[in-house]
Parts: sequence; C-alpha cells; structure tokens
Amino acid sequence: MQTSGAGTAAKGLTVAEVRLTPILIADPPLLNTQGVHQPYTPRLVIEVVTADGTTGVGETYGDTRYLDLARPLAEALPGHEVTDVNGLFTLADEVCGVPDGVSDSVDVGGLRGVQTADKLRLSVVSGFEVACLDALGKALGLPVHALLGGKVRDHVEYSAYLFYRLAAHPQGQGEADDWGAALDPAGVVAQARRFADTYGFSSFKLKGGVFAPDEEIAAIRALAAEFPGRPLRLDPNGAWSVETSLHVARELAGVLEYLEDPASTTDRMARVAAGTEVPLATNMCVTTFPEIEEAFTRKAVQVVLSDHHYWGGLRNTQQLAAICRTFGVGLSMHSNTHLGISLAAMTHVAATVPNLDYACDSHYPWQTEDVITERHVFTLGRLPVTDRPGLGVELDREALAALHRRWLDDDGTMRDRDDAAAMRKVDPDWTAPPVPRW
Amino acid sequence: MQTSGAGTAAKGLTVAEVRLTPILIADPPLLNTQGVHQPYTPRLVIEVVTADGTTGVGETYGDTRYLDLARPLAEALPGHEVTDVNGLFTLADEVCGVPDGVSDSVDVGGLRGVQTADKLRLSVVSGFEVACLDALGKALGLPVHALLGGKVRDHVEYSAYLFYRLAAHPQGQGEADDWGAALDPAGVVAQARRFADTYGFSSFKLKGGVFAPDEEIAAIRALAAEFPGRPLRLDPNGAWSVETSLHVARELAGVLEYLEDPASTTDRMARVAAGTEVPLATNMCVTTFPEIEEAFTRKAVQVVLSDHHYWGGLRNTQQLAAICRTFGVGLSMHSNTHLGISLAAMTHVAATVPNLDYACDSHYPWQTEDVITERHVFTLGRLPVTDRPGLGVELDREALAALHRRWLDDDGTMRDRDDAAAMRKVDPDWTAPPVPRW
Repeated sequence: MQTSGAGTAAKGLTVAEVRLTPILIADPPLLNTQGVHQPYTPRLVIEVVTADGTTGVGETYGDTRYLDLARPLAEALPGHEVTDVNGLFTLADEVCGVPDGVSDSVDVGGLRGVQTADKLRLSVVSGFEVACLDALGKALGLPVHALLGGKVRDHVEYSAYLFYRLAAHPQGQGEADDWGAALDPAGVVAQARRFADTYGFSSFKLKGGVFAPDEEIAAIRALAAEFPGRPLRLDPNGAWSVETSLHVARELAGVLEYLEDPASTTDRMARVAAGTEVPLATNMCVTTFPEIEEAFTRKAVQVVLSDHHYWGGLRNTQQLAAICRTFGVGLSMHSNTHLGISLAAMTHVAATVPNLDYACDSHYPWQTEDVITERHVFTLGRLPVTDRPGLGVELDREALAALHRRWLDDDGTMRDRDDAAAMRKVDPDWTAPPVPRW
Repeated sequence: MQTSGAGTAAKGLTVAEVRLTPILIADPPLLNTQGVHQPYTPRLVIEVVTADGTTGVGETYGDTRYLDLARPLAEALPGHEVTDVNGLFTLADEVCGVPDGVSDSVDVGGLRGVQTADKLRLSVVSGFEVACLDALGKALGLPVHALLGGKVRDHVEYSAYLFYRLAAHPQGQGEADDWGAALDPAGVVAQARRFADTYGFSSFKLKGGVFAPDEEIAAIRALAAEFPGRPLRLDPNGAWSVETSLHVARELAGVLEYLEDPASTTDRMARVAAGTEVPLATNMCVTTFPEIEEAFTRKAVQVVLSDHHYWGGLRNTQQLAAICRTFGVGLSMHSNTHLGISLAAMTHVAATVPNLDYACDSHYPWQTEDVITERHVFTLGRLPVTDRPGLGVELDREALAALHRRWLDDDGTMRDRDDAAAMRKVDPDWTAPPVPRW
C-alpha cells in the first residue's frame, strides 16, 4: 500500500486518524425465515480523518466479528493515502486475520448467505473505502460519484421493502411505532399502500419465507390486485426446496418481476431456473466474486442484487456491474438494515452503473434513527444523486453519541444480531428452521 | 452526461476546449502476417483544456476512420466535466455516428481483430478518457493511478517485442536505423540480445505469422537456447489453422509462456485450447466485452491481452481485469505502435490491477520519435509508476507540431495504416494473405 512518502502531490490526503464508533439502532419487529429483527441492530460508523483535517464517514455491519476485523485495520491505516482504496484490500489481508469462530465457510443458510472470513473482511473494507472516498471527495470538492467516473443518472429508484411484522417487540422492548402488525395479505397490502402514499414507491418487494408458501402467494396476488402492473418481488431467503420454488414460480408467473433466492445454494437455484421463465434474483448464492463463475455459467441467476458491503466497496460494486453487463445478467441492489451513510453510498454507486436494471432495495424507511444531520427523503420512490462534495451527508455527532451510548450500555444481548434469539422472546421453542423449510 | 450546471463544487473542471492533432510518426519496417509497417504511422493526440486552464493529453489511433469519430466528440465535449468519464460513452453514442465503410463487423482477420463501429468508437473514447483523467489529475495534484483507486505496485514490467524486420523501408522511404534486418533465428536472437542489454527485458515476444511455422519454431528455440528459462511468446496474429496451431504447440510445449492468437476466431481458438496444455493468449478474439462470454465459457483463451484503446479506456481496462480475475483467466497488455502518452496511460492502469499476471507488451522501444518532453526509459525491463500529477508527462509542442506538419504534408498514402500496401513496395504482387495462411 502506498504511504505518504511515495510522493503524491496532494499531501493533505494522508490518513491521520481513524475513529470507530459501534452503535445500536432501533429496528422494528420485522419477520423473516430465521426469526425476527432484534429491537436494536449493531452498526459500525467509521471516520477517516486526513492530515488536512477533512473527515470522511463510512458505515458497515457492527457485530463483534466485524468489529474484531475493523480495529486492526483502523490501527494500520494512518500514514496511507485516502486515494489508495485499492490498497485497502492488501492491508486488510495483512492485518485483519480471521475472527474467532470463523472458518472458510460458516453459517450456510443465514440471511447473509455463506459467511467466510474473506467476506467478513470485505464488508469491513467497504466501510473504510466509503469513508476514504467521502474524505477524498470532501477534500477535493467532488461528489463520490465523480470519484467513480461520474453519474449516468440524476435519480436512483428504490422499491418498497415490505415485511411481515409484529405490532411491537415482545416484553415491551425497543422503540414503538404506529405501523401495526402485518401477518396476512390485507396487512401486507396496507403496508404497501402506506409506503406508496408516503414515498411514492412504485415497485414492491415482500420478504417471505415466514408463512407457508401458499399464504405468501396470496399476499403477492393481493398486491398485484391493489397495484396492477407494478413490479413485485418475493424473497423467502432460500427457505424453499426446488419443488416448492417451482410451485411458487408457476403460481406467480406473469405476476412477479423476479423471484429472489427461492432456494439456497447455486445448485438448487440452477435447478429452479431450469424449470421456470420467472427470473431468479440473488443476494445469497452470488455474494462474492468466486461464486460468480459457476452461477453464471449454469444460468442459475438472472439478476444479482449487489451490496457494496458484501462486495468490498463501491469500486468492487462497479466491477460486479461490469461482469453482470458482460454476461447478460441483470443488476439491482440488496439492502440490510442500514443508516443514511450507507444509503448515500448506495445511491452514489448506483448512479454510476449504466446497467442498473431494477429499482434498488432499501430498509431505510424502517429506520427511524440516523447519524446524519439531514435524513434522505424518497420522492416518487427515488433519491436524487447529490453533487455535494463526498457522500453529501454530515455526521450528527449528538445522535452518534447517543446511539453509541446505547451500545455501551447494552448487556451484550444486542451487540450481535441474532434473529432466532429475538424470536425466542416470542416463542421460547423457536430455533432457526432447517433449509429448505418448505 | 453531467454538464457544468449540475453543481459540481470544483467548477474549474469543466471542459473549455478540445484540440485534436493528427500526426505521422516514424515506424521501422517491421513484418507481420499482413505485410510490413509503413514508414510512418498515423496517431491522434487529444488535448482537453479545462476552464481553469489545465491541459490533459490522450493518444489513440489516427487513421481517418478514427479522426472522423473524434471530431464530433471533440465538438460536443466542451461544457462537460472532466470527472465525467462514464458519460463519454453516452456522448460518443449520441454524436459519433458510424464512419463511412464500417458496418457492424468488418476487417475480420486484420491485426486489430474484428473491427466494428462500436470498437472504433471505444478506441476514440479511450483517448478522450485518458486526456480527461490527465487533466483531472493535474488539476487536483493527483497521479492518474490515484484516480483509478491507487497503484498496487511501484513498477510495471514489460517484455521485449521482437519482430522479423527489413533493414530499411523500400525506396529509401522513412527514417533509417541501425538495427539491420532480422529474417532468421540468428537475426531474432541478435535483436533480443540488444533489447535485453539496452533495456533489461527478461521476457520476449516474437511477432510471427511471417515465415512458415517451422521457421518460427526454430526462432523460438534459438531464443530459448540464448535465454534459458526466460518467458517466451509467439504471436502469428491468427495466421494458422487449428492443425498448424496444435503442431506448433506440441513443438514448443514447455518452451512457450503462452502462444498468442495462433488461430483467428473464438471457435478455432477453443479447438486449439482443447488440444494443448500451452496457454493461449489473445488480443484478437477477445477485444470487446460482448466477445468475453463465449470465449470464457468455451475456455478458448487462458490470457487476455488488454489494450485500453480497444476496451474504451483505463476504467474499462480495470473492469476487464476484474472479469478475468473472476473467471480465472490471466491478464497482460497488448500494444500497437504508440507514443509516450499511451505508454504512460498503460503504466498507470497496469499499476492498479492486482492480477497483472504477465509482463506487458510495448512497441515503444521501436519508436524513435515522441511528443513528450522526457521519453520513458525501461530499466530492468520495467517502468516506474510515477506519482507526478496526471499521467506525469508533458507535451513537447515543437515535436507535436513537426509530426503534425508531416501529416499535413503527406499525400494521403500514410494517413491510413495499410501494412499490405506497404508490402507491395517490396513485392508488387503482395496481397494480405487469406486466414488461415498456414
């Protein structure tokens, strides 16, 4: 990795300090096949401060495993240039090591797909890369999209992210909201209507894998009746067998824009794809570069839902986009619970990708808390692509301190997201179901 | 494409003027399967001047077809931002049109592979992209590699590019040199020895397709005897049949690092690859993104020789590199006759690519003329990766004017490179041979 001594003309761009702030953010009781979202979800805010005093911010997962990798990288980064984002991978390989309990392949069937040490490291690097690009953009007076070659669109379209959900977290935990429960087709339609009326979303994704497939088919049909002709998606997080996936695909052919991760593993997805004309999307079986070749050559997926956290940052996301374009595979964006820093990063990179074929996912409307001074506002289901320097967001330090305080005060139960454990507060006998569940 | 009104903070980065300077540069009488290099070869120097007076330079092919595409792009560019290199593709699609005599697919079997309107346009865009990045880097005080995410190495290795050649151009044309003829194994070895002694090159590529395959096999064996253990390559530009290619591969197994474009077309390359363990490289059957899928899935090539001119610039070259990395295909760099601007651009992008698996090609040692003030100097077969702003080169305006004067004074015979026409000065009956030739 290039150090400040290498002679870059812009000397003020050397990293002088890195600050890591783990936080807990409120999350509603959203259901998925593993369980339910915890009342609070861990995130990590990364600040990179340059020699000339410019601060860039990034955001990534905040679970202990990620923190354990982020700390040595934060220690090693000072002295390097914020321009040197390619070098972050080398540096992470050198200093991060492998977190406790992580082998080459763990947690198959988890919501984040196969978790490997490489993938955890890339998710950590992504937060540092975004912080470096934000600092660089702010120092140069250029928006992050310009550092990525320039935007090719002025707005990025997002879809409504619908969830089966409880009215409230059990035992009075967490933050209250007024959405109420959504546990049947009518509840899903009401939620979609509110999303459409509030934010103008015109495409809808339902997180499935919660109820028996026929109940979820009914929910999609109810959405299709309420919003005729609008793009609809269903995502059971790999909960179904090949046969069940094909059953759902038959029932919803012509209704779904795409079916997302109906079955887990590339092999199952390939077998589903061979039996249906409904396009299959994934953010589970293609989440890293080494997983691409088999999936693409077997035609297992027709749409990759990229996620700059998984893929190691914004430049890697552009490379993924180029690969998809080259192989005729569609592209959109995945989202996990995140705040406005990551949404800004998603929007910048999405704006630079010519082949952004579908509206992106975002959990953001479910997040009532943030660490930026001005929340993003969806209008007509879209976000504008800002030309302000860097990401175009500013840290709200009071909010950051309050959410960090929550993390400090936590007794340890929320610092690692565990949807199955959260579900046991509702159902003491709950265990994350086997794959396939149906 | 983003215009200056879009609100980018750094207002001085708007393009104010574009200058195109077609030139003719001296080229030695190097032989290939099509004929012989002309005494002078056309190139185009592109200058992009920003509102704050920073000038960036780029270089690309200068034949009439390229000039016809470059002129409308040069007219359309003022008012756009030099940061907006992604938008160059859209702008070129809008304004460049299709040059006379170019259909979707022409000149199959030419040295530059299949020429299409898309490919010509990308070669033109590449020169503009490099000029924009050079201007941006100079304006910001950052080297081009930093604009591409940062270098991952401090030197880029090049190979010696050996040619069968005549001692002089016929009829006393062109510029004289003291290399003498190289028309047999002894001549090739003497040339390689001079390259090794002068520049420190430790790998060697022979441009073949000139003599019968067994003569070229003998030349490679002579090189192997003179430089034991050094990487050797042979490139007949697709002149051979599948059977001949397999014969050469059998004869040179264990001697060649790779065999480059033994046969033309992906289908022939796939059949050769299926019959040999010698890796096959190409800069002819994979020269654009749409050609990748078939070649990679059929395992037709093991190494892609990228060329930022063909692929549409430095960012596209990085994307190609990512695709190669993902599919386990090796990467190196191709070169056509070029000057120091393009060599600087090659070196910057090569420095940012982690999977640069082989030493790059460069014709540069054969070019005695240049348009930059300080020529690049190969030491130990390598070039250093500069941290000077932009490309790190400065235009020599006197040299540029002199080479442009040569272009103006030309009677039209040199303005379009035609190696077969040049060969007819030696052999009046010469026509570019059919493919496969042997």
